[in-house]
Amino acid sequence: MLKTPAYAAAHAGAALAPYTIERREPGPHDVLIDILYCGVCHSDLHQARDEWGGAIFPMVPGHEIIGRVSRVGAEVTKLAVGDLAGVGCVVDSCRECEVCRRDLEQFCEKGSALTYNSTEMDRKTPTYGGYSTRIVVAEHFALKIPAGLDPAGAAPLLCAGITTYSPLRQYGCKKGDRVAVVGLGGLGHMAVKLAASMGAEVTLLSTSPAKEADARRLGAHAFAVTKDEATFTKLAGRFDLIIDTVSAPHDYNKYLGTLRVGGSMVLVGVPPEPTPVGAMGLIWGNKRLAGSGIGGIAETQEMLDYCAAHGIVSDVEIIPIQQINRAYERLLAGDVRYRFVIDLASLAQPAA
Amino acid sequence: MLKTPAYAAAHAGAALAPYTIERREPGPHDVLIDILYCGVCHSDLHQARDEWGGAIFPMVPGHEIIGRVSRVGAEVTKLAVGDLAGVGCVVDSCRECEVCRRDLEQFCEKGSALTYNSTEMDRKTPTYGGYSTRIVVAEHFALKIPAGLDPAGAAPLLCAGITTYSPLRQYGCKKGDRVAVVGLGGLGHMAVKLAASMGAEVTLLSTSPAKEADARRLGAHAFAVTKDEATFTKLAGRFDLIIDTVSAPHDYNKYLGTLRVGGSMVLVGVPPEPTPVGAMGLIWGNKRLAGSGIGGIAETQEMLDYCAAHGIVSDVEIIPIQQINRAYERLLAGDVRYRFVIDLASLAQPAA
Repeated sequence: MLKTPAYAAAHAGAALAPYTIERREPGPHDVLIDILYCGVCHSDLHQARDEWGGAIFPMVPGHEIIGRVSRVGAEVTKLAVGDLAGVGCVVDSCRECEVCRRDLEQFCEKGSALTYNSTEMDRKTPTYGGYSTRIVVAEHFALKIPAGLDPAGAAPLLCAGITTYSPLRQYGCKKGDRVAVVGLGGLGHMAVKLAASMGAEVTLLSTSPAKEADARRLGAHAFAVTKDEATFTKLAGRFDLIIDTVSAPHDYNKYLGTLRVGGSMVLVGVPPEPTPVGAMGLIWGNKRLAGSGIGGIAETQEMLDYCAAHGIVSDVEIIPIQQINRAYERLLAGDVRYRFVIDLASLAQPAA
Repeated sequence: MLKTPAYAAAHAGAALAPYTIERREPGPHDVLIDILYCGVCHSDLHQARDEWGGAIFPMVPGHEIIGRVSRVGAEVTKLAVGDLAGVGCVVDSCRECEVCRRDLEQFCEKGSALTYNSTEMDRKTPTYGGYSTRIVVAEHFALKIPAGLDPAGAAPLLCAGITTYSPLRQYGCKKGDRVAVVGLGGLGHMAVKLAASMGAEVTLLSTSPAKEADARRLGAHAFAVTKDEATFTKLAGRFDLIIDTVSAPHDYNKYLGTLRVGGSMVLVGVPPEPTPVGAMGLIWGNKRLAGSGIGGIAETQEMLDYCAAHGIVSDVEIIPIQQINRAYERLLAGDVRYRFVIDLASLAQPAA
């Protein structure tokens, strides 16, 4: 086993602190990745505090991992030592069921192995995430990071990037489409960049007028404040597609009213309680309220290649891991533009 | 003007009673149809009792109209005197907006003219429905009834038929798909017949075990009782498509759990209150909760031609118009299999 420095929450809500985990010796189809950067997803915080229930402790969060391959198993063909590689939210699945065969491993019928707060497919071995110096993963679940992508900025693509890229593709976002992005955080800022890069006319909808300048800088063509009821009247029937990244309670019905006939609103944020939805708001206009969950490995690779071709990475603030607990507090306060990324050099060689 | 016998509700909740309306003289693009049959839609009852608000009285309900063309304007090319013709839920629209050009006249950006409880596009002249002996309609909004369709059984196709056909087409229902139909009433029985005719494996979901025999007779391959919680466990992840025809309150989230990855649940029934929907049930599996509202004229014609080719009509109970108030009571009690259809000969020549 490979003893590996990490940061872990010892129990629900505990401050993250140094902890040593063991990674398996790489098998014939595994790669060992020396982690360079790991993005800080809002879900890291939810899970470290066990806000979704069923959390497994000690927990090493982190599923936006970028690193360099330092060892490969004998059968590995996809990656070589020295390659830049990524790991996202999923590290294994049955790879045999109909859903896995459709390249949607995250929804594996047998239950996928998530990168942390989960177990390997043996349903016993706990998985530990990217707040650590290295990870061992089956090559199928490792992504190739194309040349030209800044490694720190690319880390959040593994979750925030694919989470917003996938619904834009599923719902056929194309040049000239009118796309609304609800909320300008880690997910929202990626949705704006990606939708704009696809040629859509992007409107950012936010509770905060202070977000307008940033929204436009990121590529939005229009901006509207959702606390102003007139916004929903003005934008009635406007959008082909809405990407809703907000996890605070909000009234979906108002947003459905801003869709064109045949339009779709896709949820990627999870409010704490179910939201009442009126049937007539969906029926009158053949509308859809949909959800989209991360993406499969093939689509994640496609997204990375797309981002490299279009020069898209996340806007990040790089922190040493020793600042992670403070970063969680700032994340809760919305004080990050737009993703914290941990520089794991700080864990391998702690600052003096 | 053409004085025309009808049955109307004088005010909200009034019993329907004989009333004389005036139809316009047919213009160059109009057809005059002598009405043979008119289906009784549940929405007739809701509107006659002003349960949706804003109702216009006196009200002559009825939007499932079949009759014979008795006069045509000089410019009419689609229909000739003697032809069997139909009128559904919409009698006019602007015909110029982007939505009308997409053949979705029902959702016209300027607001379509509904067949009753509405006005013509002048926003003044009230529209009166099919509980009457004749109707004048622009030929664009008249449907051709193909040879071989029983006229009484075909009447409900103009609303119940297109309302269920359209979502099956929008969501690509095809041979081998697993389709659930929720509720076995006027809409549900058409959904079962249509989905089965498209080669789907159809499951009828009902609160009442007494519906099983009929469901199977109509073409369902399986049946499950939704009052039994085990049903939702057994059917987890099963369906490609759910057509939900129920307008009583029910928990959408349970049904979303029975969808496969990427599956869609389409609402055509309207519960009285909004239904709470959990975001994660849509996100985890890339699912959709959608709505579908009747259909445009081109798709309605396609549906009629499809039904003629596949020998599909509604199961009807024919009544004289003098029984309409009693029929409303029976409709409320669920005592009809599966659509009342008024024989308008009873109004033209009242029974002694």
